[in-house]
Amino acid sequence: MTHSTCIIFSLIEEVGALATALKIFKDNNVNLNHIESRSSKRSPNHYEFIVECDTTSKGLGKALDILHKTTTYMQVISRDHMDNADTVPWFPGKIKELDRFANQILSYGSELDADHPGFTDPEYRKRRKYFADIAYHYRHGQPIPRVQYSEEEIKTWGTVFRHLTKLYPSHACREHNHIFPLMVENCGYHEDNIPQLEDVSNFLKDCTGFTLRPVAGLLSSRDFLAGLAFRVFHSTQYIRHSSKPLYTPEPDVCHELLGHAPLFANPSFARFSQEIGLASLGAPDDYIEKLATCYWFTVEFGLCKQEGEIKAYGAGLLSSFGELEYCLSDKPEIRPFDPYRTGEQKYPITEYQPVYFLADSFEDAQRKMRKFALSIPRPFTVRYNAYTQSVEILDTKPQVQGLVRDIQFEMQLLSDAMMKIK
Amino acid sequence: MTHSTCIIFSLIEEVGALATALKIFKDNNVNLNHIESRSSKRSPNHYEFIVECDTTSKGLGKALDILHKTTTYMQVISRDHMDNADTVPWFPGKIKELDRFANQILSYGSELDADHPGFTDPEYRKRRKYFADIAYHYRHGQPIPRVQYSEEEIKTWGTVFRHLTKLYPSHACREHNHIFPLMVENCGYHEDNIPQLEDVSNFLKDCTGFTLRPVAGLLSSRDFLAGLAFRVFHSTQYIRHSSKPLYTPEPDVCHELLGHAPLFANPSFARFSQEIGLASLGAPDDYIEKLATCYWFTVEFGLCKQEGEIKAYGAGLLSSFGELEYCLSDKPEIRPFDPYRTGEQKYPITEYQPVYFLADSFEDAQRKMRKFALSIPRPFTVRYNAYTQSVEILDTKPQVQGLVRDIQFEMQLLSDAMMKIK
Amino acid sequence: MTHSTCIIFSLIEEVGALATALKIFKDNNVNLNHIESRSSKRSPNHYEFIVECDTTSKGLGKALDILHKTTTYMQVISRDHMDNADTVPWFPGKIKELDRFANQILSYGSELDADHPGFTDPEYRKRRKYFADIAYHYRHGQPIPRVQYSEEEIKTWGTVFRHLTKLYPSHACREHNHIFPLMVENCGYHEDNIPQLEDVSNFLKDCTGFTLRPVAGLLSSRDFLAGLAFRVFHSTQYIRHSSKPLYTPEPDVCHELLGHAPLFANPSFARFSQEIGLASLGAPDDYIEKLATCYWFTVEFGLCKQEGEIKAYGAGLLSSFGELEYCLSDKPEIRPFDPYRTGEQKYPITEYQPVYFLADSFEDAQRKMRKFALSIPRPFTVRYNAYTQSVEILDTKPQVQGLVRDIQFEMQLLSDAMMKIK
Amino acid sequence: MTHSTCIIFSLIEEVGALATALKIFKDNNVNLNHIESRSSKRSPNHYEFIVECDTTSKGLGKALDILHKTTTYMQVISRDHMDNADTVPWFPGKIKELDRFANQILSYGSELDADHPGFTDPEYRKRRKYFADIAYHYRHGQPIPRVQYSEEEIKTWGTVFRHLTKLYPSHACREHNHIFPLMVENCGYHEDNIPQLEDVSNFLKDCTGFTLRPVAGLLSSRDFLAGLAFRVFHSTQYIRHSSKPLYTPEPDVCHELLGHAPLFANPSFARFSQEIGLASLGAPDDYIEKLATCYWFTVEFGLCKQEGEIKAYGAGLLSSFGELEYCLSDKPEIRPFDPYRTGEQKYPITEYQPVYFLADSFEDAQRKMRKFALSIPRPFTVRYNAYTQSVEILDTKPQVQGLVRDIQFEMQLLSDAMMKIK
Repeated sequence: MTHSTCIIFSLIEEVGALATALKIFKDNNVNLNHIESRSSKRSPNHYEFIVECDTTSKGLGKALDILHKTTTYMQVISRDHMDNADTVPWFPGKIKELDRFANQILSYGSELDADHPGFTDPEYRKRRKYFADIAYHYRHGQPIPRVQYSEEEIKTWGTVFRHLTKLYPSHACREHNHIFPLMVENCGYHEDNIPQLEDVSNFLKDCTGFTLRPVAGLLSSRDFLAGLAFRVFHSTQYIRHSSKPLYTPEPDVCHELLGHAPLFANPSFARFSQEIGLASLGAPDDYIEKLATCYWFTVEFGLCKQEGEIKAYGAGLLSSFGELEYCLSDKPEIRPFDPYRTGEQKYPITEYQPVYFLADSFEDAQRKMRKFALSIPRPFTVRYNAYTQSVEILDTKPQVQGLVRDIQFEMQLLSDAMMKIK
Repeated sequence: MTHSTCIIFSLIEEVGALATALKIFKDNNVNLNHIESRSSKRSPNHYEFIVECDTTSKGLGKALDILHKTTTYMQVISRDHMDNADTVPWFPGKIKELDRFANQILSYGSELDADHPGFTDPEYRKRRKYFADIAYHYRHGQPIPRVQYSEEEIKTWGTVFRHLTKLYPSHACREHNHIFPLMVENCGYHEDNIPQLEDVSNFLKDCTGFTLRPVAGLLSSRDFLAGLAFRVFHSTQYIRHSSKPLYTPEPDVCHELLGHAPLFANPSFARFSQEIGLASLGAPDDYIEKLATCYWFTVEFGLCKQEGEIKAYGAGLLSSFGELEYCLSDKPEIRPFDPYRTGEQKYPITEYQPVYFLADSFEDAQRKMRKFALSIPRPFTVRYNAYTQSVEILDTKPQVQGLVRDIQFEMQLLSDAMMKIK
Repeated sequence: MTHSTCIIFSLIEEVGALATALKIFKDNNVNLNHIESRSSKRSPNHYEFIVECDTTSKGLGKALDILHKTTTYMQVISRDHMDNADTVPWFPGKIKELDRFANQILSYGSELDADHPGFTDPEYRKRRKYFADIAYHYRHGQPIPRVQYSEEEIKTWGTVFRHLTKLYPSHACREHNHIFPLMVENCGYHEDNIPQLEDVSNFLKDCTGFTLRPVAGLLSSRDFLAGLAFRVFHSTQYIRHSSKPLYTPEPDVCHELLGHAPLFANPSFARFSQEIGLASLGAPDDYIEKLATCYWFTVEFGLCKQEGEIKAYGAGLLSSFGELEYCLSDKPEIRPFDPYRTGEQKYPITEYQPVYFLADSFEDAQRKMRKFALSIPRPFTVRYNAYTQSVEILDTKPQVQGLVRDIQFEMQLLSDAMMKIK
Repeated sequence: MTHSTCIIFSLIEEVGALATALKIFKDNNVNLNHIESRSSKRSPNHYEFIVECDTTSKGLGKALDILHKTTTYMQVISRDHMDNADTVPWFPGKIKELDRFANQILSYGSELDADHPGFTDPEYRKRRKYFADIAYHYRHGQPIPRVQYSEEEIKTWGTVFRHLTKLYPSHACREHNHIFPLMVENCGYHEDNIPQLEDVSNFLKDCTGFTLRPVAGLLSSRDFLAGLAFRVFHSTQYIRHSSKPLYTPEPDVCHELLGHAPLFANPSFARFSQEIGLASLGAPDDYIEKLATCYWFTVEFGLCKQEGEIKAYGAGLLSSFGELEYCLSDKPEIRPFDPYRTGEQKYPITEYQPVYFLADSFEDAQRKMRKFALSIPRPFTVRYNAYTQSVEILDTKPQVQGLVRDIQFEMQLLSDAMMKIK
């Protein structure tokens, strides 16, 4: 996977053309890992082929040159995009392809830094290995394995839970406070119980289609953001070390379930989060960094205006007893959220943020992200198809015409619904 | 389930109100099978409760009267809708609820009529039981069990396959002929191989989000059509009796895979099929019959106009060697498809149709179904949410406003896409 | 005007380029009658030039060939379109250009056939000349001159008025009956008074933006339909000969005011009428004939379905005592309105129609006209801009993008309006 | 007019009901100045009445109370709105009603302050009276009288013209510079010629539907802004005193034609200007002030960002040699345009502005105005109908449904246009 290239193409002459096309790869000694044929949305009554091959094949460049001459459409997306001109960085086209991230993690979840509170605790390290292995073997479509948390782990969760829930009514945004009781009732949120990812994921799926997916370790920004495009949030399942219940140097299940999960049940926030994800697909590396920074200052550390007051909606704040109080004090600087500027802001990882960004609303933030996304240099826009759980690369007129038809369909639904409302 | 009633309601006063509401049921001796709380889309910042209870409870009527006084919104949907005024016939709200159909089948798949070609064949009856049991135990989200078909079964399939594929180029609609080669390449369609439902379902999911679901026996029209609302097609998995390879008194895997499946890969046809399903949700019994008749004359026996010629797109035609030739001959009568009239047409089940209905295009047929659906007496419209795989009951202004926002979102996508097309 | 050609073009190089372009015409001895420069909607920050010249200039063809090489966009519309390949039949771009029709009438309004009831009546012929002259000198933007009708003329009107208004409640469509009392109250409709075109025109302008325009004689179908594109109806102002009050061989003020005017006050009918007009702009001659036939069988002789009954909405019916009764009898044949077929139907002019066409609704008829319009071979669509009272030729992406922006603007208005409705 | 009240109402029972309603007014001694009946857009097949009466009638309050009981819809708009609860400040509903502003001017155009450069010049005062009289007698639909400017006046114009046109290329926004050459070619802009308002108005009408209307003196903010809702700009026709060609204490023809006119030819700017006008209709007095302030800081003194540079688009800047240079210097403060804040900003009238507001684009400014307009307390939204040149008060579901139909119509046009673009 690491060195794979994906080629999407349509052929001028259809009959027997695919065989000829595949021969091009063979003649140039390019190994094909996967071949798929589909109906083309770019040219009615034509087919489209998706071929995946090994980037390390020396003949690939030549094969592509030859192939290019017989195609009516061709798009190359590749993990090794920097080595090939005219290619777009690889991104998953279907939700199932998120399975590939598992063996691309930057550091495995059981590797701890020397200053980690659990570094010298062999029991904790074993536990971390256990959780990492669950995630490593997880595949799309499976239920997330249920975990029996230990008493010690539950106690740590309880401490965090009690501290934070006291602050939420006054510090958390309206949406978080609105959803929280539903998670208590539907997902087993309780100070004596660590909710199961599977239960939370199912609840979120019901609310907005967001799902959780266990992650074995640190993903690259590109991969992590790509998950959001599919409304998939990569979540840890382990808990912080019991010696420091109010501190964790990395995301843990407290951070995910208390900070992130409730917001993903909100349709506007879900759409906003997905927007960042969609913007990242096929973006150049420098834009991935800007988007990751926007993610940091919104989904992780975002503030928002509500009825004249400032509230926290970022998970990094909602899961940190200390920073949640600090962020609403008069100490930090607060600036309006604006992806062009927010995306350039430097930030520390190990201490409280000196600067926060304030959103007018999730809808407004979403629109701004969308506008920013247009400035990303890539030769297409993308559209998520929730029916097929796949991303469509929009770059031809027939696709835009399809979008127009979809909007007409929705307009008719609107017209019908107007007749029925009281 | 058979005698269950589902109550959706919001409460005037929120805090502690749910407890009071639940006490109403208890006081009237109504057993609750399921309680769910969600964020309301009808009233921002409010909750909505879905309570499922046993219709046979005598106190239910009284409980509903009392409950009604404390609700801001209340909708009762019930299997026993005819016995209760103001209730709407029950329908599934989430794709998962299709699981309930399994034990509501009208006749189990292993029960054969005396004139069935396999009636006296104990081996065949055993086989039918095997398939019925697979379906009976199937649950949403699971892969469809792969089946090892016998040599005899494969031979039967081969006979059917050879006969039909000869006729397709000249008799089947453009869409069927366009998709068929893709099913050969992607799903194992071959005269020597009966494709696995799971492979076909996955392919369809990729194309349009349609999925197949094994069915243990005959579903009621209401339940069968409801599946289409979720883009779920209830499919048999067994094959006809080997003694009469070109005849089957009921749907079998040849009918499903050769007749139905290819069309469900077409986005316009998928939308049309779903439209019938959505129209059926909560419709009165007489309208269910009209819709089932429309289904019969389109998805099963539909003809369409293409480049001046008439072609078959109904699965009943595309899986019947004899009727496929007959329907395009000058013997039957052909009328334009019009749900108002088509839905009233009587039809025979055991012989060739004397009348067929001709669609201008799937899009046109879909628009006509939509218009017809508006004439169905029910106090709401419905909208399918592909993210949550659930059906939203549209009957309030805030929901329509949400729909307007969604359209604005799509319009922005359209605007962005316009900038990128070549 | 009769032999004029209109060239719309943009230039590659802007500065000084117009002068060069104009020199091309001069060098080839082409006389320019009119030069106009505007901001281009096809290419932001560019200009567009409209040049009108004499088609009889021999050098025109050569000039166009040379000009073509320096343009980024070029469109030629010409009265003499048949003599020039690649040109589109001329049509007015602005409402003001309807002034040009005045001197292109096929026969002047004072010329009467030998069998005309007023042929031998010198007084009547003088009167007809008077009305024709008013129309001939009328220019866009002027009030329509008020006319003092004679007692005899008023008596003729009164006879017609009394006869028809008796039939309307049972024979005319709902819309006609709804509007008629408003015309009584606002425009002086009364058996003792012939309403003034100016008053009727002002009332219509208030209702739908339609206006009347006096016409000096018979217009070609192309010109007459073009008026409708601008919501302008060319109306006679004289009245039939007093000797036969219930008969007229040609449209007169009774036909216009009793038959046509009330319907033009209905927004759906106004849109439908305009649709025919827009479809005609730049259409080839054979399509003009089809459209004129559609006009005949709708605006002049159309029937529609209303609450299960058939009613008349065509002005030819609503202004003819005899045919209004006949058309709803069981004598004529009635077929569904379908522009593809209706446009091919032959019809008599001097007797009752043997065939009528039935519309489901004005909205449905409008959608069908729109769909039919797409089949007309012309390299653009047209859009009417009511602000500038001009027709935009839509054939480039930037214009479509402008349309998308306009729709987004309307969607925002919809969203705002939703918040205010009760 | 000054003390008039306008009542819009529909009646429960239609037949004869209007007579009864009118009797209510008579019985309470309320004089009616105007009665109009129209088809209702709020309730299909019903009528709507607009009655205008004298506010000074003592019985009006009682009459309204009685009338209210027999209406299905009733809206009172009144010049004396402060004295009547539940009434909305009067605003014109049709473009023709702008004629009423003429005799409501706050000070007649010939009255000069003691420090006016022309205060002691009897010739100049006579000239001012001449221009004021033209405007006073002007009525909608008439051509604006052409004026023979004196040599002295033309010389003053020439001085201003030469000075400003030197600065435009570097200081004016892109849109102004794009349109200016078109005004030279089409409207007679030249240093030796003062263009005629009529020519400029006709050109603007062609471009965006904006028209100029001569004004006899100072209008109230409410009236002036209301004009913009109809894309009508009230323009002076006289020129400043020749003694100080680069200074004028009030708008003059240099300001209108060099500053305002070119921008009104830009579709986005036209829409933005109209948005302010539409927002003002029926707004309370304090909001009129906020809107007038927004107008001041945009249409009069606005700056915008273009390709990284700041440019002037406000007419007050584009017509002032001094302030045009000053505003782009580093002296003034520049803040982002935000109607909520901009509308609160105090400003001097007689000296250079200390603060300017910067728009991202006209589209962005328009969207912000629209959003701000939603915060104005009035029980409806308004929609301009360019066909009827009237303002529709949107406050019922059928009107919103009409808007939905209009959008569907535009979507179909979009779909059609997509097929034709190259």
